[in-house]
Amino acid sequence: MISRLALTPGEPAGIGPDLCVMLAQKPYPETEIIAIADPVLLQQRAERLGISLELIPFDELKPASSLSPGKLRFLPAGLNHEVVCGQLNPANAEYVLDTLRIATDGCLKGYFDGMVTGPVHKGIINDAGLSFTGHTEYLSALCEDAYPVMMLATPDLRVALVTTHLPLSEVSQAITKQRVQQVASTLHNDLQRCFGIAQPRIMVCGLNPHAGEQGYLGREEIEIIQPALAELNSQGMQLIGPLPADTIFTPVHLQQADAILAMYHDQGLPVLKHLGFGNAVNITLGLPIIRTSVDHGTALPLAGTNQASLGSLQYAVKIAETMVKSRLRERSGN
Amino acid sequence: MISRLALTPGEPAGIGPDLCVMLAQKPYPETEIIAIADPVLLQQRAERLGISLELIPFDELKPASSLSPGKLRFLPAGLNHEVVCGQLNPANAEYVLDTLRIATDGCLKGYFDGMVTGPVHKGIINDAGLSFTGHTEYLSALCEDAYPVMMLATPDLRVALVTTHLPLSEVSQAITKQRVQQVASTLHNDLQRCFGIAQPRIMVCGLNPHAGEQGYLGREEIEIIQPALAELNSQGMQLIGPLPADTIFTPVHLQQADAILAMYHDQGLPVLKHLGFGNAVNITLGLPIIRTSVDHGTALPLAGTNQASLGSLQYAVKIAETMVKSRLRERSGN
Repeated sequence: MISRLALTPGEPAGIGPDLCVMLAQKPYPETEIIAIADPVLLQQRAERLGISLELIPFDELKPASSLSPGKLRFLPAGLNHEVVCGQLNPANAEYVLDTLRIATDGCLKGYFDGMVTGPVHKGIINDAGLSFTGHTEYLSALCEDAYPVMMLATPDLRVALVTTHLPLSEVSQAITKQRVQQVASTLHNDLQRCFGIAQPRIMVCGLNPHAGEQGYLGREEIEIIQPALAELNSQGMQLIGPLPADTIFTPVHLQQADAILAMYHDQGLPVLKHLGFGNAVNITLGLPIIRTSVDHGTALPLAGTNQASLGSLQYAVKIAETMVKSRLRERSGN
Repeated sequence: MISRLALTPGEPAGIGPDLCVMLAQKPYPETEIIAIADPVLLQQRAERLGISLELIPFDELKPASSLSPGKLRFLPAGLNHEVVCGQLNPANAEYVLDTLRIATDGCLKGYFDGMVTGPVHKGIINDAGLSFTGHTEYLSALCEDAYPVMMLATPDLRVALVTTHLPLSEVSQAITKQRVQQVASTLHNDLQRCFGIAQPRIMVCGLNPHAGEQGYLGREEIEIIQPALAELNSQGMQLIGPLPADTIFTPVHLQQADAILAMYHDQGLPVLKHLGFGNAVNITLGLPIIRTSVDHGTALPLAGTNQASLGSLQYAVKIAETMVKSRLRERSGN
């Protein structure tokens, strides 16, 4: 069965459109990729890159079908202003959000099996007077009732975060038993549902250096994290920790874990990005839809130059394909 | 010229004595290594490991000389109680501190050019009623007036820390302009003096995710770190940042840096320990003496089993040798 993935190129003046054109040159025998974008933009970018591209309109009434390299299906969204490579324009901010709404709506209605997002530019969207703190928050609002969890993945490592974009001074207060349990449960459940891991082994970082060293360097491990994990483990999860964050990422530990759960951004991501830069993928767990994303920015100076690297987008599509299959298997009870 | 390094084996029930015996089997043509230890303990451990060891008393009046493998110079310190491998005994805590005092004193008086420390067990020292929060703090108190900076190093990466063993909730308040400048200056100066780097390039992490994202995720970068670095740069240092900690450790950035300065423990050490576990070295900068240390614990269950790994201690000796030479060159004006 061929699955359908919506692809939002993100900021039109960045490398997102380039990556869509480049991706369309690769064979995807089991997936129909549908770019949610202005077709004129895609065609112009293809010409600028010297890549031949045939755009084929998406028809939701037809069964999904794979296209040969050089062809790309699209669902149109309309730009407000012509795009100049590398030049942000607030007039096109609404267009960027339109593509996200169309893709999310299509996922919720079942036209698409999942969505893959390109890089957006938060600043220009906010400059246009539209409130936007990030893909994760925006999509989760569109999905309602969702409790999103940010997970990053490379081929060898998955890291999920209990807190994400918080000033460091606010992290300690944000670590509550409820939050740790919600994030850990979502991670556990989605590793089962979307990654086909029957009994996920999750290694959990402490909050403090040396995981608090028996309370000498902070008591959150003893008072919050440890009891939170113990309760979930008694329900059948395999949450190992809290462990010191400086040694949890050593190869000998990583080999034993399906995922690492870090308490905050700069505790969890340095090793992941060290290992995976250019090939890391950002995955939003806890949504009713499947969503993966590139792990890089808009790279404005590289737009239209043939110097963008396709690695992260290819990997984001691959992970989305895996998640779709795993979820279908789970739903069919196999 | 042959330099003299004092070696303190650390906790006698752990692998420290094993490592001393093993190290004595390696050739050190340019260094006289002097174990500050109970000679009976060293001899017993050598026998248990099946390694032949000839102990030769240290004589400060004789010129330094290199020994052939299988021989080890020692300066005696007396155990209070016989040692059982793997079994901590508070009766020997004072002995452990004695070895540190003898080594530090010898460095301050110029008998030794530097010291290398094995792993101690903080808990058992405190259980014995002796206050001990760590080597760094203990040695810095012995040296008086010192403002120590903790730096860890692997063959490919050096990471220094602005704050070390603090609960995470206290980190933000501890990041002051004075502290950032003291640590950055010590790092800069010691990279010049002890590592022979004429114009060190130091990349500095922000405190908050994405280095505060222009103030949206915290203002310490704008109000404290940035001005602190600017002032030092105007005095001729090369401090680059504050930069986001999740991307500063990607290989492309690391190649451009002589050292990374992280704001706190779990921001700076995960990548370093990922890359270097078993071969990382802990270096105390900002002291009047040279001190390096292994970057592992006492590994009590491995004591006397021939399973301890010598990598970190060998690397600690190598770094100490490098630092001694660099400092001698600096003093002689070359």
